[in-house]
Amino acid sequence: MGDSSGTDTDERQGEQGSYVEESFERDTNYITTRITRDARDGHRVEAGRYRLVVARACPWANRTIIVRRLLGLEDAISMGICGPTHDRRSWTFDLDPGGVDPVLQIPRIQDAYLKRFPDYPRGITVPAFVDTTTGEVVTNDFKQMTVDMETEWREFHREGAPDLYPEHLQDEIESVSKPIYTEVNNGVYRCGFAGTQDAYDSAYERLFTQLDVLEERLRTRRYLVGDHITEADVRLFTTLARFDPVYHGHFKCNRSKLDEMPVLWAYARDLFQTPGFGDTTDFAHIKAHYYVVHRDVNPTGIIPSGPDLSNWATPHGREELGGSPFGDGTPPGPPREVVPADHNPVLALL
Amino acid sequence: MGDSSGTDTDERQGEQGSYVEESFERDTNYITTRITRDARDGHRVEAGRYRLVVARACPWANRTIIVRRLLGLEDAISMGICGPTHDRRSWTFDLDPGGVDPVLQIPRIQDAYLKRFPDYPRGITVPAFVDTTTGEVVTNDFKQMTVDMETEWREFHREGAPDLYPEHLQDEIESVSKPIYTEVNNGVYRCGFAGTQDAYDSAYERLFTQLDVLEERLRTRRYLVGDHITEADVRLFTTLARFDPVYHGHFKCNRSKLDEMPVLWAYARDLFQTPGFGDTTDFAHIKAHYYVVHRDVNPTGIIPSGPDLSNWATPHGREELGGSPFGDGTPPGPPREVVPADHNPVLALL
Repeated sequence: MGDSSGTDTDERQGEQGSYVEESFERDTNYITTRITRDARDGHRVEAGRYRLVVARACPWANRTIIVRRLLGLEDAISMGICGPTHDRRSWTFDLDPGGVDPVLQIPRIQDAYLKRFPDYPRGITVPAFVDTTTGEVVTNDFKQMTVDMETEWREFHREGAPDLYPEHLQDEIESVSKPIYTEVNNGVYRCGFAGTQDAYDSAYERLFTQLDVLEERLRTRRYLVGDHITEADVRLFTTLARFDPVYHGHFKCNRSKLDEMPVLWAYARDLFQTPGFGDTTDFAHIKAHYYVVHRDVNPTGIIPSGPDLSNWATPHGREELGGSPFGDGTPPGPPREVVPADHNPVLALL
Repeated sequence: MGDSSGTDTDERQGEQGSYVEESFERDTNYITTRITRDARDGHRVEAGRYRLVVARACPWANRTIIVRRLLGLEDAISMGICGPTHDRRSWTFDLDPGGVDPVLQIPRIQDAYLKRFPDYPRGITVPAFVDTTTGEVVTNDFKQMTVDMETEWREFHREGAPDLYPEHLQDEIESVSKPIYTEVNNGVYRCGFAGTQDAYDSAYERLFTQLDVLEERLRTRRYLVGDHITEADVRLFTTLARFDPVYHGHFKCNRSKLDEMPVLWAYARDLFQTPGFGDTTDFAHIKAHYYVVHRDVNPTGIIPSGPDLSNWATPHGREELGGSPFGDGTPPGPPREVVPADHNPVLALL
């Protein structure tokens, strides 16, 4: 989670992590309150009650944006969008008129955290669900959030929504996702925030070893698990979309660009060109976030102009592997919240 | 001129440059004393008298290493090699036993500058010629140095040495080289050392505009000028060799990697695979220099493991364009000063 509760100088703290022997360790202590059908934690699924707060820049938040859109939960769950470059205290609603979220009426997502926990000690992260009836944050447990959207919120899914977390595939989704999380999703941060050459070298080795494993797995399968898009693909995609624009240079994940790993590159383009993925990807926010916020990695805050992203629109040829993105379901309609055209020039090429 | 006379905190000063309106401007005030046949500046060409001091990391010094080797000047001009990561005061002879150049008996090239100019105010740069009879620096005017090696030192060239600066092509070499210098050789530094987004954006635009011009020029010509390797190719090569390992990420020159510009990439490989070019390229020194010395760009000093460089050994297909690298001459023999195998793993693949 990109986030914001860092100290003045250590923006890495802002990633809700800390260092153990010079290696970046993500703080995985989230607020685990769940929103469920049975309201076991006091929060029942209910259309219109919860607001999903995201930043398009953040890969973890981007997962929830994709899932909400694929499942057609826009009417049931509203969405507040923070700008790409949070300040020291919090992600902010600087994109909104007056810098205030029009529903929550707060300038910072931090305010919803402090409303519930006045002394909240950990990272103020997105994505987060906020209860609009109280203004209090409910959860920022990003892994559980998408799973709950896929399972607990079923009654609110659109007609034709895919099953992103089918019961018979859940074990496989989780077992495939586990090394993707540790080595790839989090692995890129471990490369970029390494405090020593040894810590970096080890993170780099782990990252590319796992990418090579995925390159093999996806050579003969269109999707990570089963024949349709699942939660596992959503989890991998948001890291891949940031790879060449950010992780390759900014985080020194540079054995090769994504577009030099033929299978993963075709897989990523296949997803990108599927409604819900590319159309929720905001390259301008992504680049602005990492390059501006992490001053300890990029002291000037200058944002690179490259890379040329037009190759995301090229044919991927993955249809030959069979499978179908939405199984028995259908693609979502046009996006409700549109990424500005100059933030993602690839969309005009598709 | 990577160099060394910078202040404590501004390693960019160490590149012998300064800022005008947040743009990097290279200080081009060199010591212009020439070593010539007629000794017009008091220094006559003479075998064994001058020592060429270089760092393999530095693109400007690398030019002189290539030219000395192509022309077979090793017996006439000895070479002292500084390590890749100079300290605040100077490039140092830290690779030599005891940290002292075995001929000049000094630990820093700075000492040869100060011996001649006790209050020398400008950058202590490589390449430099030092007069071994006095221990004083003669010149660090890198552009004149290679030209003089090619013209004034002719009587000491090896048999079969190519003419890298033929009289009838000198005007064309200089006119082709001019925008290469301002937009490419120096342009990459202008990207990397930009102090503002505008300065960077402008430098990036200029760099890739000129690379596109070169991509067109070299589409139908094997070499930049004429049918053989000339000084113009040497000048461009040392920047291209550093492009993917350093400039793409570290200096944000990331519209594309060199290996994504098909003509320039084939051209660069053709030269790399020609004796004198790849075998004087020390990727380990190159990466160590930029990533360790420029702490204001890369605060941790961590050196990226990538990119995979093995593709430098792939066939380039440029023979089809005709031309011959050495014209009526011959390739140089095996290198006298060998780049360690683990500093350039590509050589073992050729």
